[in-house]
Amino acid sequence: MIILGIDPGLATIGYGVIKSEKGQFTAIDCGIISTPAKMSVPERLSLIEKGILSVTEKYSPDAAAVEELFFTKNITTGITVAEARGVILLTLLKSCKQLYEYTPNEIKKAVTGYGSADKFQVQQMTTALLRLAEIPKPDDAADALAIALCHAQTGRLSGAFKM
Amino acid sequence: MIILGIDPGLATIGYGVIKSEKGQFTAIDCGIISTPAKMSVPERLSLIEKGILSVTEKYSPDAAAVEELFFTKNITTGITVAEARGVILLTLLKSCKQLYEYTPNEIKKAVTGYGSADKFQVQQMTTALLRLAEIPKPDDAADALAIALCHAQTGRLSGAFKM
Repeated sequence: MIILGIDPGLATIGYGVIKSEKGQFTAIDCGIISTPAKMSVPERLSLIEKGILSVTEKYSPDAAAVEELFFTKNITTGITVAEARGVILLTLLKSCKQLYEYTPNEIKKAVTGYGSADKFQVQQMTTALLRLAEIPKPDDAADALAIALCHAQTGRLSGAFKM
Repeated sequence: MIILGIDPGLATIGYGVIKSEKGQFTAIDCGIISTPAKMSVPERLSLIEKGILSVTEKYSPDAAAVEELFFTKNITTGITVAEARGVILLTLLKSCKQLYEYTPNEIKKAVTGYGSADKFQVQQMTTALLRLAEIPKPDDAADALAIALCHAQTGRLSGAFKM
């Protein structure tokens, strides 16, 4: 099955597409959708919708997985990131067969085995599980691959889908 | 001109439609869009999109005005409200000719003359300006009418549009 992982944001949205087959994971594509700070928020939301649709139309993912937001500070920035995430969720609901959400800790745990793993450990395990030569760049793209892997691992362990 | 005011939310979204003509304001419609708590957030976002579209298709507003979010506490609730507001902004951008955003203080000031007016004063002035017999119910619908009035007043005073 093809899984799309999304690392939500307003300025930069990471996406990662993997193939999960018989317990083996392969990276198909990863990258970012960017929106310029000089644009109004509604216009940036429109760009995000178009960017997500271009990825889902290209790869027709069987499932999409999106990271949940967690804020401890800087709520002002958090509001616009959450606005972008709302648009991302609705766009994926309309363009993918299945939609899942995972917390940052669930993603860390699924990819590394530890909910308290640091960002670099998650990136290293993502690189290893996908048998890549080096850590994908930029960080948002690597994070999105980790989110896709989280869904592949979680679904495999829970028996939610066959591979 | 026809102005649509939106009071954003996840569970309850207020909408208010007014006509602004030669400095006179008339209420055309107001009400709420509701989404059930037992539904998933993505499904609720889809209901919100459909609800907003049914209002814009019915009244073809010349402009839409949406209140900006302001959180001092309960960030967890705030995240999903902001997700809903993102969907509201994008839906209005695609279905209305013009889209504006106002802070709570701008709305209070435009409707009552005072940025520190309380909720009841805003509702009373909204009722008076629209020559209604009583304060519209529920609160979210009355708030949405105040947001529409804010745009009508602000546009009139700034000369942004002719009436």
